[in-house]
Amino acid sequence: MSLIVQKFGGSSVSDAEGIRRVAKRIVETRKAGHDVVVAVSAMGDTTDELLDLAHEVTPIPAPRELDMLLTAGERISMALLAMAIKSMGHDARSFTGSQAGMITDAQHGSARIVDVTPVRLREALDDGAIVIVAGFQGFNRDTKDITTLGRGGSDTTAVALAAALKADICEIYTDVDGVYTSDPRVVPRARKIDRITSEEMLELAANGAKVLYIRAVEYARRHNVVLHVRSSFNNNEGTIVYNPESSEGATPNADGTVSKREETDVENPMIAGVAADLSEAKITIVGVPDIPGKAAQIFKIVAKTNANVDMIVQNVSSAVTGRTDISFTVPMNDGHRVLQALEAEKSEAGFESLQYDDQIGKLALVGAGMRTNSGVSAKLFEALSDAGINIEMISTSEIRISVVTRADTVNTALRVVHTAFGLDADDVAEVHGGTGR
Amino acid sequence: MSLIVQKFGGSSVSDAEGIRRVAKRIVETRKAGHDVVVAVSAMGDTTDELLDLAHEVTPIPAPRELDMLLTAGERISMALLAMAIKSMGHDARSFTGSQAGMITDAQHGSARIVDVTPVRLREALDDGAIVIVAGFQGFNRDTKDITTLGRGGSDTTAVALAAALKADICEIYTDVDGVYTSDPRVVPRARKIDRITSEEMLELAANGAKVLYIRAVEYARRHNVVLHVRSSFNNNEGTIVYNPESSEGATPNADGTVSKREETDVENPMIAGVAADLSEAKITIVGVPDIPGKAAQIFKIVAKTNANVDMIVQNVSSAVTGRTDISFTVPMNDGHRVLQALEAEKSEAGFESLQYDDQIGKLALVGAGMRTNSGVSAKLFEALSDAGINIEMISTSEIRISVVTRADTVNTALRVVHTAFGLDADDVAEVHGGTGR
Repeated sequence: MSLIVQKFGGSSVSDAEGIRRVAKRIVETRKAGHDVVVAVSAMGDTTDELLDLAHEVTPIPAPRELDMLLTAGERISMALLAMAIKSMGHDARSFTGSQAGMITDAQHGSARIVDVTPVRLREALDDGAIVIVAGFQGFNRDTKDITTLGRGGSDTTAVALAAALKADICEIYTDVDGVYTSDPRVVPRARKIDRITSEEMLELAANGAKVLYIRAVEYARRHNVVLHVRSSFNNNEGTIVYNPESSEGATPNADGTVSKREETDVENPMIAGVAADLSEAKITIVGVPDIPGKAAQIFKIVAKTNANVDMIVQNVSSAVTGRTDISFTVPMNDGHRVLQALEAEKSEAGFESLQYDDQIGKLALVGAGMRTNSGVSAKLFEALSDAGINIEMISTSEIRISVVTRADTVNTALRVVHTAFGLDADDVAEVHGGTGR
Repeated sequence: MSLIVQKFGGSSVSDAEGIRRVAKRIVETRKAGHDVVVAVSAMGDTTDELLDLAHEVTPIPAPRELDMLLTAGERISMALLAMAIKSMGHDARSFTGSQAGMITDAQHGSARIVDVTPVRLREALDDGAIVIVAGFQGFNRDTKDITTLGRGGSDTTAVALAAALKADICEIYTDVDGVYTSDPRVVPRARKIDRITSEEMLELAANGAKVLYIRAVEYARRHNVVLHVRSSFNNNEGTIVYNPESSEGATPNADGTVSKREETDVENPMIAGVAADLSEAKITIVGVPDIPGKAAQIFKIVAKTNANVDMIVQNVSSAVTGRTDISFTVPMNDGHRVLQALEAEKSEAGFESLQYDDQIGKLALVGAGMRTNSGVSAKLFEALSDAGINIEMISTSEIRISVVTRADTVNTALRVVHTAFGLDADDVAEVHGGTGR
């Protein structure tokens, strides 16, 4: 008998029928002889509706009270899910984040988990009950206040529970069959990935793949939790996300067992996948004096805005002017704020002007295999060049190459790169809507 | 500076506008220099909607999970109310039943308060914050589970908080101006009562007056909490409900001060009010052998159904048959269950047949003054007789006379009795809809 943590998102429990469907699925796992702990999100659009209500009451809701409000969402879904399971003849108990021992810092709206003390969950499991935990929420020990974990919080709840309870596997149920080599809505021949390292998954998630949240993957990697991303609409095996460094010569399987590394390693492709992101904008600072400390000064200004800077590229400076241009990308939502901050300190920073471009697309090719293969970037640039796509920025990490192109060419870029690296499936992937969250 | 507990029902906070209106009212009280603790119900029909959702999932929801579900309702309203107050520049903090220290027994759906430990509320008050508490909910220490207090629970929450915090007054806000001598929708000349004893209020509430719940009044009487029932739509003084035995020669006022008893006692009318109840049915057990122990045997059968038996009348037995008839009233909802239980044990109980009549109306005349005035029942019977209304059952307590009539005559009965006892106001009362809960 193994312990399985399952996470179901809001779209899986959007109405009474969905709740009963999910309940049935949980009961099947229980009947197969496993202990089951479930993290569940709020039903459908509940969280957005509660947010709207808050904004009807006041334009800037107090963070403590907003968290109190939003946590009502999972309270509703978890209670309904528990009563659905009980009506099917199995014992089930729902627990709020604080009852589940999900201890966080006091940062309302984006709290971080600092400890998990699942005393009541263990008691319930010992009693033979199925445990249902509210996703997304926690509790601060000092203030004794309720907190929420922010975007993707229910994934993080599931992973944190799996780590604390030493679960054999953490299943993330979604409305797609798993993690794909690229977005199947854009690349029809995208293939479902059977196994991917958490490192690669992090790069894909950070570069536009929406199936898993970065924080949850990070948490899973740090605590060696094996994830199984799979569909709540069928029983197909999905994608296993694992940390190869922790699994000591073996790779985990969907049923919680492990295979010897040799069997699977040969299959390991050089490239895990290719992702695109259209949500970033490019800011170029023109005519930066090419003297030591200037870049630091500029990015201190940017850092104060809390904007999440991604790619940074600095051109060689002009021999004539002694000045250079610095470009970087930020989420479009942060663009205006960053521009304002820079403009305000323009004279002190000493640059000439600012350019803003939100018509860019970012493509990221990810694969642990590229560490040992030097031809990857050449192949990437050639594929894009053959398709007549111009590259505006390049940045690389050990297992990733990112390029910025015009926004309207990024989907074509995805397809040609997918083909060039031999990722195309024989069949066209079946596409479901939504992102399963 | 005094401490005021205020309770707002669901109809007062049915939307964002209502929440802002209530927030403003609370802030006004704070600005007047008082500490304020608020008990709030779920918004509008939220509780019913959550109940519907539960029944969509399963016909018989598990009680623990149903309580978990329903408590989401007040969580939403209290968080919105607290953020509305904060947006008006005053500190406010919301607390769930368990955070507020509302300790109950483990009876899900109708838990009873066993202790109130408002440690966090006192801290918040000491910090100068306005305290918002979720009505209707509590927490059991042994199971560590969330409970709900059942019908009228928010009134009880408010009274329990007032008792535990030794509040100067507990204001129950509703959509009528206070407690009336009779239902203004039926008796247009019903008068608002300025002061009423908790004993009289209990009798009125038990006999159909819907403005306050019996449990809350009982709790208030036991803990000597002074209630002020008033409208959330104006600033008029409402009705003071108080325990004369506890107030030691003085009667409390709306502002928390007291007046000497002499000033007010002379105004104390003999009759407090007259209430009607159309929700009961009459069961008659025909041909009960008139031997000792028979009535006990029959009411043991009834007691097993948990039906709430109200009036019981036994006729003199027939000299010919040695048998008698016993009639009693029960809530219509319980009628079928009681009939079944009796029918099942008919032969053992030895009665001849059962009659069921749900076309009855019950009228109750309530007043502490009738203790010392023997002419009350004669006057009541005469008023009904003059109006051609037949009396089917009579029962009395020290401060109440109840009669059962045909259902279709009970409204006329209310009006003629109201007039006969000099309760009619000079003006016609303004009638708002609903019952404010």
